[in-house]
Amino acid sequence: MSRATSPLRNWSSSGGLRTITFGDDQPLHLSSGEKLSPMTIGYETYGELAPDKSNAVLVCHALTGDQFVAGANPVTGRAGWWPRIVGPGKPIDTNRFFVICANVLGGCMGTSGPASIHPDGRPWGLRFPVFTVADMVRAQAMLVEALGISELFCVIGGSIGGMQALQWAAAYPNRVFSCVPIATAARHSAQNIAFYEVGRQAIMADPEWREGDYLFHGVRPSKGLAVARMAAHITYLSEQALHRKFDRALQEREQVSFGFDADFQVESYLRHQGQSFVDRFDANSYLYITRAVDYFDLAGDFGGALARAFKDCPARFCAFAFSSDWHYPPEGMKDAVRALIAAGCEASYVEVESDKGHDAFLLEEPAFEHALAGFIDAAAQARGLVKGTTP
Amino acid sequence: MSRATSPLRNWSSSGGLRTITFGDDQPLHLSSGEKLSPMTIGYETYGELAPDKSNAVLVCHALTGDQFVAGANPVTGRAGWWPRIVGPGKPIDTNRFFVICANVLGGCMGTSGPASIHPDGRPWGLRFPVFTVADMVRAQAMLVEALGISELFCVIGGSIGGMQALQWAAAYPNRVFSCVPIATAARHSAQNIAFYEVGRQAIMADPEWREGDYLFHGVRPSKGLAVARMAAHITYLSEQALHRKFDRALQEREQVSFGFDADFQVESYLRHQGQSFVDRFDANSYLYITRAVDYFDLAGDFGGALARAFKDCPARFCAFAFSSDWHYPPEGMKDAVRALIAAGCEASYVEVESDKGHDAFLLEEPAFEHALAGFIDAAAQARGLVKGTTP
Repeated sequence: MSRATSPLRNWSSSGGLRTITFGDDQPLHLSSGEKLSPMTIGYETYGELAPDKSNAVLVCHALTGDQFVAGANPVTGRAGWWPRIVGPGKPIDTNRFFVICANVLGGCMGTSGPASIHPDGRPWGLRFPVFTVADMVRAQAMLVEALGISELFCVIGGSIGGMQALQWAAAYPNRVFSCVPIATAARHSAQNIAFYEVGRQAIMADPEWREGDYLFHGVRPSKGLAVARMAAHITYLSEQALHRKFDRALQEREQVSFGFDADFQVESYLRHQGQSFVDRFDANSYLYITRAVDYFDLAGDFGGALARAFKDCPARFCAFAFSSDWHYPPEGMKDAVRALIAAGCEASYVEVESDKGHDAFLLEEPAFEHALAGFIDAAAQARGLVKGTTP
Repeated sequence: MSRATSPLRNWSSSGGLRTITFGDDQPLHLSSGEKLSPMTIGYETYGELAPDKSNAVLVCHALTGDQFVAGANPVTGRAGWWPRIVGPGKPIDTNRFFVICANVLGGCMGTSGPASIHPDGRPWGLRFPVFTVADMVRAQAMLVEALGISELFCVIGGSIGGMQALQWAAAYPNRVFSCVPIATAARHSAQNIAFYEVGRQAIMADPEWREGDYLFHGVRPSKGLAVARMAAHITYLSEQALHRKFDRALQEREQVSFGFDADFQVESYLRHQGQSFVDRFDANSYLYITRAVDYFDLAGDFGGALARAFKDCPARFCAFAFSSDWHYPPEGMKDAVRALIAAGCEASYVEVESDKGHDAFLLEEPAFEHALAGFIDAAAQARGLVKGTTP
């Protein structure tokens, strides 16, 4: 791959994490007015950048995702999180495209966040500045620029990754050839703010959280974070999916225990979701990233009219929603598509019938995959990228 | 009012709470096979019992409700919780009917529960036996019998109060003249078990919970209970209601704080819901009652066929659901009504268009109130109760 060589940037790789660090001369300017420096971005790339740098795809990950979209995460040992979409021969074909995925600002997989070490040698904790989705995207733009790429062939993401994709189109209209927001919205709803707030309160209620200073004290607020994850996880699944997967099936027993063990499979499943999450995620990162998403209201940033956010954006869009997604229901995606069309953009909308809820974009959904592959292929042709050749 | 005088029962009233205690000679036989004694029921009545005892209405309260359905709770100072439905001139007219409302088994408003004092002088805590909705109803039946009432004119309730109403019809078909289940279902869904489990885990994650022994230690697990309440409260409201009430409105500020204060009104509202709840509710009661509801599956109790639960029940039913209720969606109520009709019961179903979500049954919903008043009136005529006369 191509690497920029500016002395201002410090590229490195250790423990399987590739990072770039921007020094004090290149602070990240935050929506709050604060500046963040130094600022490190953990990122991964797949495939080869074409000589003319025309084939770069930026994949934006969701709330608790990471940069390992198509290959195992060397830190956690988990498999890549989007194997059906990104990889050789997949809709985003790594034989054809140069795929970049960066850990979001505030994350805990190499990018600067509250768990990072402050220049004073202690973890940032709550001293880390509160940021927005626009700030996440600004940081990604710094990475993309450092990679020498002036225009992304595509920006794609699901859930809050889709918010980032929309934000890219709004903030850098001339640096995005195509944009694929999936299972997302241009604004976070009251219900979603409410669910996020429950998660934050669960974390902050854990005495081990210690006002965010737990890393210094050495014990993490695991119980609170697990509860936060459990509450959120319900919103990722549809009622139908929970019914189909679990209904009222009991967990390794013939009858209920008349107690508070996990009698039901759905309880056992949720507890497992909570427990496995705390091993890989930082509680303060959860606070900060959810806060950034709460603040996301693209129309609000453009005088109340969403169409204004996309005015003059020459990108072609394909937006996806899933019928049973109640975390980011189709209605919100349709609002964004209406605004795109009102702004004169080329925009398609695909609503996929699915009972899998919000997580459908991560699961097997052939109709989604086929439509996405078709859109990517058509966009690649329009961009003059020849199919099937490794650049 | 009429009071039974059996020496086996101990009627009392103190601190504004009326109770009846059943002694060791009248234990409550629980679904688990255990027996509970002594067993106290806190209850309230409104109106006068007719000489022939034909006009008794049992109102069953929801998860965190109490027996003060139509008048202020003398302990908490809160107003009656169903003022639009129960009272003089209301659909359940206390000038006409003798209304009984009892705190559910496991509750914390006078009825035996985990916060009650065990015969050994310490609070029961987790030693209290786990019970079911059927057990709640069995306890209510003991109260009704002690009041000398052989047949209830009506059993009515919303949410888990509606489950109790259905359970009454199934368990005591000949002691119920009419039955009104509202915003409920004959079985708790996987999604609802999941939400309840989040609440329980939030409580148990609070170190002050101390394996349920907090009353002995003197500090309650208030933070965990508040988180549990916040998570549950979201399920009581519809996405539309949250949007209408709060959308993204800020709380007493012009712009976001870039911090973790309650920037949004919906956050402030939820925090208030959590805080005010812990002052009036016991954390262990929350564990036990949610567990009872998890276990509710009326078809399961009758060999898998819900219609069998209602076979030979001569009661007339009117079931209500609210279009935007996603906690107990109309589909679940319709399943119950189908079973009632399959069982040959006289059953009506009213689906009320409302954007207020599950809590609609507690709020101003004229269509609901009119239909309910009409059903009650027709049932009273069928029962031979003359309108407008105080017995």
